[in-house]
Amino acid sequence: RAPQQPVKSACRDGLSAVPARTRLPLMGIYKSHTTSGNYRCKFQPSPSCNDSGFLQKNNNLDEKSRIVGPFNEQPSSKTLLARDNERDSRFGRTETDFSNLYARDLLPAKNGEEPTVQFLLELVDILTNYVRKTFDRSTKVLDFHHPHQLLEGMEGFNLELSDQPESLEQILVDCRDTLKYGVRTGHPRFFNQLSTGLDIIGLAGEWLTSTANTNMFTYEIAPVFVLMEQLTLKKMREIVGWPNGDGDGIFSPGGAISNMYSVMIARYKHFPEVKTKGMTAAPRLVLFTSEHSHYSIKKASAALGFGTENLILLNTDERGRVIPADLEAKVIDAKQKGYVPLFVNATAGSTVYGAFDPISEIADICEKYNIWLHVDGAWGGGLLMSRQHRHKLNGIERANSVTWNPHKMMGVPLQCSAILVREKGLLQGCNSMCAGYLFQPDKQYDVSYDTGDKAIQCGRHVDIFKFWLMWKAKGTVGFEKHIDRCLELSEYLYTKIKNRDGYEMVFQGHPQHTNVCFWYIPPSLRGVPDSQDRRWRLHKVAPKIKAMMMECGTTMVGYQPQGDKVNFFRMVISNPAATRSDIDFLIDEIERLGQDL
Amino acid sequence: RAPQQPVKSACRDGLSAVPARTRLPLMGIYKSHTTSGNYRCKFQPSPSCNDSGFLQKNNNLDEKSRIVGPFNEQPSSKTLLARDNERDSRFGRTETDFSNLYARDLLPAKNGEEPTVQFLLELVDILTNYVRKTFDRSTKVLDFHHPHQLLEGMEGFNLELSDQPESLEQILVDCRDTLKYGVRTGHPRFFNQLSTGLDIIGLAGEWLTSTANTNMFTYEIAPVFVLMEQLTLKKMREIVGWPNGDGDGIFSPGGAISNMYSVMIARYKHFPEVKTKGMTAAPRLVLFTSEHSHYSIKKASAALGFGTENLILLNTDERGRVIPADLEAKVIDAKQKGYVPLFVNATAGSTVYGAFDPISEIADICEKYNIWLHVDGAWGGGLLMSRQHRHKLNGIERANSVTWNPHKMMGVPLQCSAILVREKGLLQGCNSMCAGYLFQPDKQYDVSYDTGDKAIQCGRHVDIFKFWLMWKAKGTVGFEKHIDRCLELSEYLYTKIKNRDGYEMVFQGHPQHTNVCFWYIPPSLRGVPDSQDRRWRLHKVAPKIKAMMMECGTTMVGYQPQGDKVNFFRMVISNPAATRSDIDFLIDEIERLGQDL
Repeated sequence: RAPQQPVKSACRDGLSAVPARTRLPLMGIYKSHTTSGNYRCKFQPSPSCNDSGFLQKNNNLDEKSRIVGPFNEQPSSKTLLARDNERDSRFGRTETDFSNLYARDLLPAKNGEEPTVQFLLELVDILTNYVRKTFDRSTKVLDFHHPHQLLEGMEGFNLELSDQPESLEQILVDCRDTLKYGVRTGHPRFFNQLSTGLDIIGLAGEWLTSTANTNMFTYEIAPVFVLMEQLTLKKMREIVGWPNGDGDGIFSPGGAISNMYSVMIARYKHFPEVKTKGMTAAPRLVLFTSEHSHYSIKKASAALGFGTENLILLNTDERGRVIPADLEAKVIDAKQKGYVPLFVNATAGSTVYGAFDPISEIADICEKYNIWLHVDGAWGGGLLMSRQHRHKLNGIERANSVTWNPHKMMGVPLQCSAILVREKGLLQGCNSMCAGYLFQPDKQYDVSYDTGDKAIQCGRHVDIFKFWLMWKAKGTVGFEKHIDRCLELSEYLYTKIKNRDGYEMVFQGHPQHTNVCFWYIPPSLRGVPDSQDRRWRLHKVAPKIKAMMMECGTTMVGYQPQGDKVNFFRMVISNPAATRSDIDFLIDEIERLGQDL
Repeated sequence: RAPQQPVKSACRDGLSAVPARTRLPLMGIYKSHTTSGNYRCKFQPSPSCNDSGFLQKNNNLDEKSRIVGPFNEQPSSKTLLARDNERDSRFGRTETDFSNLYARDLLPAKNGEEPTVQFLLELVDILTNYVRKTFDRSTKVLDFHHPHQLLEGMEGFNLELSDQPESLEQILVDCRDTLKYGVRTGHPRFFNQLSTGLDIIGLAGEWLTSTANTNMFTYEIAPVFVLMEQLTLKKMREIVGWPNGDGDGIFSPGGAISNMYSVMIARYKHFPEVKTKGMTAAPRLVLFTSEHSHYSIKKASAALGFGTENLILLNTDERGRVIPADLEAKVIDAKQKGYVPLFVNATAGSTVYGAFDPISEIADICEKYNIWLHVDGAWGGGLLMSRQHRHKLNGIERANSVTWNPHKMMGVPLQCSAILVREKGLLQGCNSMCAGYLFQPDKQYDVSYDTGDKAIQCGRHVDIFKFWLMWKAKGTVGFEKHIDRCLELSEYLYTKIKNRDGYEMVFQGHPQHTNVCFWYIPPSLRGVPDSQDRRWRLHKVAPKIKAMMMECGTTMVGYQPQGDKVNFFRMVISNPAATRSDIDFLIDEIERLGQDL
């Protein structure tokens, strides 16, 4: 065994000189010296950070935990009942000295059962503490550090890999430090991305998935997951509105790959010879998408050999929705130049504005000119689950393919994205290479369940289980409720700020999705007439406020410029933990941090 | 609340008529009626299945668990110490009636802490039971059912999704059923894929990753993981042999996508205008790869617009290694036809034979003709960690790009694949689209850490943490030991069967990797001279044995034809749990099941 190293940890108050952790005698369980309720903002980008009156606890995970003395509490008889119900004493949690244990002592090592279970239970203790704190509004969303600070090794948290093994105690400490310096994407005040929230059922699904550790390519090694995928995809197609849920589909590693699939399939449908002969076998093909659409359409056009210049951007109205007449004009123009219009992407829920392109009108044009219609519903697809909001995707049933990411609006943990295809057989035809070593035709079961050859991947992670489990646990009605609630919250935000002093909306009208886009105008810029100088100063406001937010760790919201519009905040709500009070908090925080800009 | 439904479960002896599960009074914890040690093979494809003398326990997870009565055991004082050390009684495991709890009662619900923690602990109990049994050789590798059987709803295990929520009790039962009907890919006798084994540290890493539930695209929301990825990729490049570990790279959702990246980058390096103008802007480009190489190269040539006909297959020697002279001849031939040789893929560890192409000799040719050299080390890359075996990849330091899947030979849970690129800047140049809403240049930190725009994905799952944690826990030496051990085991298998009655090797000589390819010749075919009829009969042997193995659930090993060779077994060893006794068992099992064919 390697000589025992002192355990290095960053899990303590960053400004204190007290050693990271001392060991409780006899128990081998570490204890932390932390100062709770005494949060000091280290970076102090603005004085406002300290006098917020918002008492932030340190992000520290082990604060208060484990320092209950051994005799403070006697187990109740109720507790005993449950504990004794465990299989036997070996599999309850016992104190374990992890400082002398190493990975090699875990299963499949001889006598590895006990340390394995104890190690996993210890980790689960860390994780459940993290989960609880994630939902605790007195916990920070993040404890920001610059890359060079983390790389220098925050108070013993050493990211470098070494030749010799570390003890399991060090590994557990590393796990805690990893969470400490991360971002709580499930925190009720984390609004930074389209994917937020920490769904407990989804989390359970992921824990099980990783324990099963298998691969989606064949029924042989993932029988249950393959069937779950099949049934869920069918259900999704039914919800899209395709008769009997017929068609095809697959879960892919994200919306960008799903969108890439759609372009590939469209090409295969109209020019199947490209598969064998390459793009030179086809005429000059052009693709169409909104200037507000996701950049993955552009990435796909580059990767698949179309070239980004053959992706034609469509004009939008002031709300970011494609103008159908512009599409038709550009289709006609392309045809006159001798190009072949192949593919139109309609976005259902654009990334920044949350805009829904008018699918039905676009479908009319696609039918008229025989163009593949794809709907990128990565973000907006979730609204299909809501009777109140699904009309925003009217016409989606006329699409040839649909991207829909349950890991966004439906709160499923990352990654969970589906590409749905109306015509059966195309996915297989487009991608199959009939690798004999994997997809043997002479198996004892119905090999049509071996879906691997449809994919551009070989090994494919099990993304279905968490989603399936959430669907079981919430029901269709549970997803609907979640979506309606998020949209109500964004309406609340919109109503609150649209006429408020210091706010200017990026576009007028009620939000279509949960995206609410606005400028915060600090007092120094209010009433100042529009000019290049004012725009330039306004452009810097959102980044400054965002930086302070992150350094204070109180909340997170995204910003970006769009076209000729200078940096503005884009608020999105997909987090089931968020409430009106969190929206109020965000507004207060923006005003607090931005008052002196 | 929805009316309480009876809990449906398939977790019991499939042949028994006893209700799936009855509830222990007062405790709300389900108990299962199972018959341990009484395994009966349901499908009985051959009489041999029942009289193996190999006593198989039912795969059932809850057998024996939880049926210890409440007063069978008093906790020892040692146990009490540890239990009281828990934060407080709320966070120890207590009995919970999950039949009246629903997803909506979990966090972020009011008072959701207790049910959340209890639900997760209950799940962890199921998972740790599964983990323990996975390593238990008296447990079956799988409990095989045909798709239609599972779809019909095995004894209450209903895969259909519904509108109304199910209780948490039903959800937990569904979790157990999901594992019951799955395949134990970590079982010491699971040899079916290149990715086998269940690494406990890797598992812990995955549990943490899913709890953190974040996304790799920006430092902003994944600071620690982004840095871990950067450091680990650098370490991998050092091990490949690039000076100072310089270069670039990214983790992708699998080897097929990594290989696709390599082709894209090669194209961008030599014909950057393809990104904007498409494939028609380039001359006719051709790619080269071995006829034994992974089918993902072919998938990439189709997807990226080259066309599979422009992928030229290289001849191999009898061991499946590319013949360099054949490569050079085909390069010259292509040039004479006016085509441009762009890309050569050298395989380090082919899927079926485990062959290592001679990288140095191939690199000479690539340098001479200015062709991009990619090494697909998805399977063989792990051997770089072994001082004894890394010479098989000599010359890899001359490659322009390398695919290396830690999720294969290094035992990291799925998915974990890296594409490494020698020249910095290409990955970014090839894929970046500068999406303003995601990659704002005016952030407060060094935005060169925002790696998202290098990827063809937008959202990207955190695949690094489990790998980083395993490296910490095992050290470089731990991976080396694992790899050396697996190669010793394959040598053991090779030595055992090469002269054994009833075995014929597919190719002669010691295995280069852990792949051992062989025919089992049943007694009825021994001594029969080669003929079309014998080949046809032999072709059916492996599928039949495999089907029986799966139906008995005792072990799993792959088979496939290759070129003009009829179906043969491909044994691979990457499972750290496998020992010589498991190899012996496999051989005995093949002989037992194949004796009457």
